[in-house]
Amino acid sequence: MNNSFVLRGGIAFSESKNSIVTYYRGYLVCENGICKGAFTELPEKYKGLQLYDYGERLIIPGMTDLHVHAPQYTFRGIGMDAELLEWLSTYTFPEEAKYADIEYARKAYEYFAEDLRRCFTTRAVVFGTLHNEATIELMNLLEDTGVVTYVGKVNMDRNGGENLQEESAEASLLATRQWLEAIDGKYTNTMPILTPRFIPSCSDELMRGLGQLSKEKGLRIQSHLSENHSEIAWVKELVPESSCYANAYELFDTMGTPDCPTIMAHCVHSDDREMEILKKHGAYIAHCADSNMNLTSGIAPIKKFLDEGINVGLGTDVAAGSSMNMVKTMLITLQASKMYYRLVDTNVSPLTFEEVFYMATMGGGKYFGKVGSFKEGYDFDAVVIDDSKMYSMRDMSIRERIERMCYNDADAIIKDKFVRGKKVFS
Amino acid sequence: MNNSFVLRGGIAFSESKNSIVTYYRGYLVCENGICKGAFTELPEKYKGLQLYDYGERLIIPGMTDLHVHAPQYTFRGIGMDAELLEWLSTYTFPEEAKYADIEYARKAYEYFAEDLRRCFTTRAVVFGTLHNEATIELMNLLEDTGVVTYVGKVNMDRNGGENLQEESAEASLLATRQWLEAIDGKYTNTMPILTPRFIPSCSDELMRGLGQLSKEKGLRIQSHLSENHSEIAWVKELVPESSCYANAYELFDTMGTPDCPTIMAHCVHSDDREMEILKKHGAYIAHCADSNMNLTSGIAPIKKFLDEGINVGLGTDVAAGSSMNMVKTMLITLQASKMYYRLVDTNVSPLTFEEVFYMATMGGGKYFGKVGSFKEGYDFDAVVIDDSKMYSMRDMSIRERIERMCYNDADAIIKDKFVRGKKVFS
Repeated sequence: MNNSFVLRGGIAFSESKNSIVTYYRGYLVCENGICKGAFTELPEKYKGLQLYDYGERLIIPGMTDLHVHAPQYTFRGIGMDAELLEWLSTYTFPEEAKYADIEYARKAYEYFAEDLRRCFTTRAVVFGTLHNEATIELMNLLEDTGVVTYVGKVNMDRNGGENLQEESAEASLLATRQWLEAIDGKYTNTMPILTPRFIPSCSDELMRGLGQLSKEKGLRIQSHLSENHSEIAWVKELVPESSCYANAYELFDTMGTPDCPTIMAHCVHSDDREMEILKKHGAYIAHCADSNMNLTSGIAPIKKFLDEGINVGLGTDVAAGSSMNMVKTMLITLQASKMYYRLVDTNVSPLTFEEVFYMATMGGGKYFGKVGSFKEGYDFDAVVIDDSKMYSMRDMSIRERIERMCYNDADAIIKDKFVRGKKVFS
Repeated sequence: MNNSFVLRGGIAFSESKNSIVTYYRGYLVCENGICKGAFTELPEKYKGLQLYDYGERLIIPGMTDLHVHAPQYTFRGIGMDAELLEWLSTYTFPEEAKYADIEYARKAYEYFAEDLRRCFTTRAVVFGTLHNEATIELMNLLEDTGVVTYVGKVNMDRNGGENLQEESAEASLLATRQWLEAIDGKYTNTMPILTPRFIPSCSDELMRGLGQLSKEKGLRIQSHLSENHSEIAWVKELVPESSCYANAYELFDTMGTPDCPTIMAHCVHSDDREMEILKKHGAYIAHCADSNMNLTSGIAPIKKFLDEGINVGLGTDVAAGSSMNMVKTMLITLQASKMYYRLVDTNVSPLTFEEVFYMATMGGGKYFGKVGSFKEGYDFDAVVIDDSKMYSMRDMSIRERIERMCYNDADAIIKDKFVRGKKVFS
C-alpha cells in the first residue's frame, strides 16, 4: 500500500465541535499521507488510485491521547481505592523507580508500545520516567509503532521518595540536555517534550530552568494542574507567592504560548482565574475523566472550558485511568459531564456526543497540527472498525453506530489503523 | 462433565461484604451442583472427583444482573444524550411496541439470550415487554441458555404511547394470568415475576390487582423507583395520597415481604423515608450506575443503603445501561460512588472494591438463595477467566488481578461458565 489510495466504508468525522459529518458507503481519499476529503461519489481525478473497500465497516479519524504515563501501563487497574497522593507514593513512585534498570524498562515498554499500536490512538503525548536511558528506549519503541508521539523524560528533584528523585535542579537540567542531545535528529514520529512532573516534584530552580530551556530550544512542556484538593493545597504551600496553581506555572514561565503550547492534565478544580490563564497562554487541557473518577479527584467543568474557547483534548492518564482505550474514555467523559451537570451545577449543560467525539479526535489532534478530521488538508490518520458484533434489528445510521461503539468499546474491533497515510496496524 | 468435579485455579469470592477470600492455585469442589468450598489442599474425600486444572486462570462466582430489559438490548448505546422520559418515549416505547410481532421478538431475543449466555452473568432478573407471546418466547430461549432467570411480562395500562399500552387494568391482569398459565410447570431455570413497569405506566387499579396476584400466587414483583426527578414529580401527581414514591408502591401492596421480596431498580433519589420502607419490606435495590449516569439521573447513595442493611445488588439496566457486562458495571459503580462522595456528601465514603464485588456476586445472588459465593452450600455458579492479555511486570495477587479485571473488562476473556454445576458456556 503506497501513500495515496482511497478507502470506502461508513465514514464519520468532526467538522467542528458541534458537528459530525457522516457518509454511508462513502469514499475517503488519501494523497501522499494527506486527506483530500470524504465524498459520496468518488471524484474523477481520484479514480486512478487504489481503492480499498471496507464494506459496512466504520472509518473514523485516529484519536489523540493527550496524557498517558508509559511506565504505569503494566500496573493499571490496581490500588484504585486510593486517592492521588497515596496512590503516587504507594504504587506509582516505587514502580517508576524500577525504570533505572534498562532491561526492566525495555520489557515493560515493549508491552506499552505494542498495545498503543493496537488501540484507537494515532497520536499521543507521553510521560516516561526521570531515567534518560529508559526514556530513549521508550522513544525507540514508539518510533517503530508508527504512532506519532511527544515523549517526556520526567523532571523531579524533590518529594519523589526512595530512588525516584534527581539529585538537584542542576542535575535534572543537565540530564535533560543530555537526553535531548542523545535523541537529536533521530526520529520521524517521535518528539521530545519537557516534562516537569508537577510542582510538588520540582523545585523553583528546576521549574525556572525548564522554562528557560523551553524558550531556548522552542520545546513544548507538559505537566499536571489542579487535579486533587490535597495537591492544590500543597502547591500553595510550596509556592506561596502564587495566586493559584496555574499562576505558579506562570511564575516559572512554563505555561507556554499559543505557538508553543503547554499541556496541562486534569484541571479538575480550575476556577475562572485558572481558566483565564490557560486561555491566555493557548494551553491545552488534557481532560482525564476516567482517572479523575478512579482517584476520587472530581469532575472538570469541561463544557465551560470548551465554551470559553480553551483548547481541550482527552487523555487516558494510564494508570490512574486504567485503559488506553480512547473510546472507553469517551464514554466515561460523557458520564462525568452528565454528573457534573446533575450534581454540581445545572447551569453547565452536559457535553454532547458531538463534543466528546470532537475532543477525542480533532480537539486533541489540533495539538499536532491539522490532525483528527477528514477535512481536506488534514493528516490522514484513520481507524477502520468492525462493529458487526453489535447486532441491531434495523439499519443504523453511521452517527448511531459511532455512538453505540463509544458505549460498547469491547465490541468495536479495530481492523486497520493508518497514521499519515501509512498502515501501522492490521 | 457430570455435576460433581473439582476446578483448580486462582479463586476469589466474597465471604461477606467487606471480605474477599482468595486462593492461588486453589481447589474448588462442586458436588451435585453445590459448592463444597475452596481449599488450598484438596481434601482426601474429594480426590476421587474429576479435576479440571485451569492453571493461572481466575475462577470467580457467577454474577447476578438484578435488572435488565431484554427487548432493549438490540438498540443499546444510542440516544444517550437524552434523559429518562424523553428516552423512553423516543427510543424505548416505539421499539418495545414491535414485540407484538413474534418473529421480530424471536430474532431479537435470540441475540439477547446468546449474549447473556456469554457474559459474566449466571443469574438475571429480566423485563420483557407487555406481549405474552414474545415474553414466553424469551423465556423459552433463556431456559436453553442454562442461566437462571426471573422474567416478567410487563404491565402497563396508561401513558405507554402508540401501540404499547394494554386496554385496561382488567385486560392487563387477565393477560398476566394467561401468561402464568401458559408457562406453568414449563421451566427449570426460568421463573415468572410480576412486572408493573412503573407507577406512571400502571393505573391504581392495575397496581392493586398485581399486589393481590402477588399474594395469591406467592409471586415476586419487580419495578422501578425514584430514578429521575421528573418521574418522581409525576408519580406524586398520579398518586397524590402517597407520602413518597416508595409509599405509592406500598399503598398498592406491591413492596413485597422479606420472604417474597420486591426488586426496585435505581432508588437514585431515595431519602431516609424511602430507605425505611425498602428495609421494612426486605426489598432489593437493583443499583444501575451505568444507566443512572447515561440518562443523567444522578447517583444513588449505595454506601448508605448497604450500611443500613438494605439488600443491594447490581443491574446493567440495558439499554439505559449500554452493556450486559457486569464487570464493566462494577467499574462504573465504583466511579459513581467516588463521585457521590466527592461531589455530593463527604460523609458517605466511597464504596470499596470489596463491597462492589460483593454486590455483583453475593449481594445480588442472595435474591436467588445461596448464590454468588464459593462458601460451602452455595449453588455452584462460576466463571473462569483468562486475564493473561493484561501483562504485568510482577506476579500479581489474585485480589489485584480481580480488581484489574474490573477496570479492564475488555481484556478479561471468559473461558468457561458454570451454573449450578453445569457448564453453560465454553
